[in-house]
Amino acid sequence: MSDTSPAPSRTAVVAAAIDLFASQGYDHTSVEQIAQAAGVSRSTFFRQFGGKEDVVFADHEVLLDESRAYLAQPHDDPWAAVCDASMRVFRHFAADPELARRRYAIVRQVPGLRDREIVTVFRYERLFDEYLRESLLGLDPLDAVGFAALVTSVHNHVLRRLLRGGRVPAAVLRRALDDAMRRYGVHPDGDASADDDLVVATFPRRMPAAEVTRRLRAALPR
Amino acid sequence: MSDTSPAPSRTAVVAAAIDLFASQGYDHTSVEQIAQAAGVSRSTFFRQFGGKEDVVFADHEVLLDESRAYLAQPHDDPWAAVCDASMRVFRHFAADPELARRRYAIVRQVPGLRDREIVTVFRYERLFDEYLRESLLGLDPLDAVGFAALVTSVHNHVLRRLLRGGRVPAAVLRRALDDAMRRYGVHPDGDASADDDLVVATFPRRMPAAEVTRRLRAALPR
Repeated sequence: MSDTSPAPSRTAVVAAAIDLFASQGYDHTSVEQIAQAAGVSRSTFFRQFGGKEDVVFADHEVLLDESRAYLAQPHDDPWAAVCDASMRVFRHFAADPELARRRYAIVRQVPGLRDREIVTVFRYERLFDEYLRESLLGLDPLDAVGFAALVTSVHNHVLRRLLRGGRVPAAVLRRALDDAMRRYGVHPDGDASADDDLVVATFPRRMPAAEVTRRLRAALPR
Repeated sequence: MSDTSPAPSRTAVVAAAIDLFASQGYDHTSVEQIAQAAGVSRSTFFRQFGGKEDVVFADHEVLLDESRAYLAQPHDDPWAAVCDASMRVFRHFAADPELARRRYAIVRQVPGLRDREIVTVFRYERLFDEYLRESLLGLDPLDAVGFAALVTSVHNHVLRRLLRGGRVPAAVLRRALDDAMRRYGVHPDGDASADDDLVVATFPRRMPAAEVTRRLRAALPR
């Protein structure tokens, strides 16, 4: 019956693998040992993961899928939605910092894993970039690319602080993401209000034209 | 005597390799074929490059070294220096767009090369990040990380437009980098002047405190 609920099983295999990598080293841990420790067969392991390396990145695959699904929901403000997606990823790792730290220590020790971590992080950046361009037709791609890079980089910096052992409340990342929105003139604080029939709106000069259009359209009575 | 001037020889080997990769495919090109086409011995090839993959990234290695050397020179304005380093990398590829395009086409076709490109790009980002932190003591690391990511991402976007066949003047990147500096409130247009004994300076609220301190120190008479 375990085949009908693969998700918890995957999580257990990941936890068992990280424990083994941490205690005896990544290179000295075989798939057989992981399968045995997690109580799954070798063939189940290979069906769940492509290989040993994929166990280390299983969380990111799930989080990338979840981020994509989250962004696919309707959002009033695409810039805030990207920031919220970033917060959700942070909260996932912050929920079990000890597991995240053991994982991080393994990634840092193995050059191949370190490189794959960089490539994986870039996938979030590309996801955010593509989402912004799809949500804001006419947006200058440079603004999408830059904002996605800014959000991803501050996210990683704050997450790394947590992974290096610091106590990092989620509010630290929230503030950094608020800053990122202000740098693009898209912080909700600056929103036009739709309280009256007459809307007088001011926008920071640095706000992308496509975003000004979107906000005016949202604020104006139909 | 060729050993005393390895640099031009390396460039010739790179060009010969890119030509072969483009005409017969990366996977179907052997080190022997590259060495023969470039007129070097197999052992010279392996001394100059670690392997076949390294030929594709030889330019980036040189450019990373040059960027590091450029940033190590004295600069009045670290933020502008990072932007100038980015411009220099762009100009290198723009000087021979056809070679750069052939290289890019190969990288895009081979997943392993694509991943290594992402990792290589991240090395520029880290170089800029570390340079800013070293140059501006007390700078919030989040500002260094974010600015480095922003510069690197807009650079790559503009470079990719060039590599995809567009005519992209360097001024396009310059404008994007000016924008990046404005988003951090560090564009030279906003500089304090040191013409008189009394200095009255205004700074954008979003300028990092460490940068305000640096500018005040630079502007005040000793």
